[in-house]
Amino acid sequence: MTSIDLNSLAVTPADIAAASRAIEKFAVRTPLLTSPALDERTGAQVFLKPEVLQRTGSFKFRGAYNKLSSIPEASRSAGVVAFSSGNHAQGVAAAAQLFSIPATIVMPADSPKTKQERTKGYGATVVLYDRDREDREAIAREICMKSGATLVPPFDDPKIIAGQGTAGREIADDMAARGAVPDVVAAPASGGGLTAGVAIGIKARFPQSMIMTAEPEGFNDHALSFAAGQRQSHHAAGRTVCDALMAPIPGELTFSINRQLVTSGAEVSDAEVAEAMKFAFRELKLVVEPGGAVALAALLAGRLDAKGKTVAIVLSGGNVDAELFANLLG
Amino acid sequence: MTSIDLNSLAVTPADIAAASRAIEKFAVRTPLLTSPALDERTGAQVFLKPEVLQRTGSFKFRGAYNKLSSIPEASRSAGVVAFSSGNHAQGVAAAAQLFSIPATIVMPADSPKTKQERTKGYGATVVLYDRDREDREAIAREICMKSGATLVPPFDDPKIIAGQGTAGREIADDMAARGAVPDVVAAPASGGGLTAGVAIGIKARFPQSMIMTAEPEGFNDHALSFAAGQRQSHHAAGRTVCDALMAPIPGELTFSINRQLVTSGAEVSDAEVAEAMKFAFRELKLVVEPGGAVALAALLAGRLDAKGKTVAIVLSGGNVDAELFANLLG
Repeated sequence: MTSIDLNSLAVTPADIAAASRAIEKFAVRTPLLTSPALDERTGAQVFLKPEVLQRTGSFKFRGAYNKLSSIPEASRSAGVVAFSSGNHAQGVAAAAQLFSIPATIVMPADSPKTKQERTKGYGATVVLYDRDREDREAIAREICMKSGATLVPPFDDPKIIAGQGTAGREIADDMAARGAVPDVVAAPASGGGLTAGVAIGIKARFPQSMIMTAEPEGFNDHALSFAAGQRQSHHAAGRTVCDALMAPIPGELTFSINRQLVTSGAEVSDAEVAEAMKFAFRELKLVVEPGGAVALAALLAGRLDAKGKTVAIVLSGGNVDAELFANLLG
Repeated sequence: MTSIDLNSLAVTPADIAAASRAIEKFAVRTPLLTSPALDERTGAQVFLKPEVLQRTGSFKFRGAYNKLSSIPEASRSAGVVAFSSGNHAQGVAAAAQLFSIPATIVMPADSPKTKQERTKGYGATVVLYDRDREDREAIAREICMKSGATLVPPFDDPKIIAGQGTAGREIADDMAARGAVPDVVAAPASGGGLTAGVAIGIKARFPQSMIMTAEPEGFNDHALSFAAGQRQSHHAAGRTVCDALMAPIPGELTFSINRQLVTSGAEVSDAEVAEAMKFAFRELKLVVEPGGAVALAALLAGRLDAKGKTVAIVLSGGNVDAELFANLLG
């Protein structure tokens, strides 16, 4: 695990460094937080990377802005298209607005209202589809064909992965500045883009760190894939409260990275996610959405074997409807 | 206003520097945050000091720990006593626990449950009193007389003010590191300890900065006192949602500092406080209690004349009951 040459991967530490430069003017350099209450509760030394504080309320702006910055000038006026349950939607819409590029976002009709409204708020055209009956990729590709717009994939793209990796690079830089070395780094996983980027960003400085994914119970395609050594779909038929983490299978490109850098995947129940969100409200004073809280949930539920260790946790997003948030606190 | 010799004040920049050293092992070095959404909304360049992320969920730990660190060894076993609506209570209780000093806290029976429970959680004995019929200072002083315990005042004490001032010093350090100069710095005011400390901490580096207090409408004893040039009580008979900001009159010591360093006081309605809390939930992803949100509320309501300026806002606390929080979001 420690002998991997990061420069042999499809995304390299140099790509992440370039992405850091590309996004620094507009992305928030989110801080690395500590919480005495969390350390006491877990028996670990915990560092939190609150991407809830990122522009648009999730890490997705990093990858989206990095990707858009790579679109040639001549292609920009035709616009960009993305499909997303909501956080990538906002990331692409906000980045497109900054570049004055028209954006069309294909979103599930049952995605959180706050995500739909915020996406429109960044000036994007939102096209809703039925999650059970329609194919969002087909809809997005058809729009691209007709308009000549560029598709901005949610995770399986080197520029997207490099952009998300800037979060991992910042964690590594800030921990090094404090003289801390992460034993374990855990991030929420859906398509695996955040994990892949963070893994490269961390291992560029701390090759010995163990990287883990966290997923909702049932939506455990990463856990299954790590165990099998190849991409596996999850078997979940229903829903999870983690609307951001419902991708059916790891990405090809992301998994080509993650299978080499990630140790294993933790799974958490919806109840454990709710507990983590409550803990974040009560003790961390942070608003974290369900999907953004799964790595914290895995830590609090004892799934990261963290006691006595130094742990970094990514809180990947905070875009949750007020009504759902209030219900989960009750 | 710019010619004041800070070293002539009852609390000096050197006292704050000493407090920073005294608390650094246990206080959280809270970050200075920026928010593109907030800058866009206000037309200002805004820096947020989120003391909601401080140990115990408010800035009060800073002053409490600094004060307790000054109690002679021989006096510690007799314990400490404090009266507080809740945040000072937690700050004193948590600091006392770290020093292994017994703590008794006199709290109003109608203070938020989360504040009562958290105070007990830090190992303190909580004594409840009736806000309308009993005198909390008399109760606290009687306990001190009987037990020989040390009273830890909520604001009118040089060690408390110096401790709170560490927040201002950190704002100044972090803004200087980013090449920013605050035109306006606004903090919530009850007894005025946070404001006094922050004013000294800021002006030690940025003597030209304008310091402002923010208070709930009606509970405007600082605004009245600045206008009159001397301490004035407010005339409010009822309640405000800002349970942390109900002191009837500025402190003597705090006002001796604030009347020299603070320009004026802004006032905000309970509805504007609720709007600020909603904005913090939706855009900042921070949990801010009503009293902790008044300076942000003043900014959002246009009371700080912030457009085109560089502004620093203290979010002083985040200890709010889940039920109230959910109601305010609705």
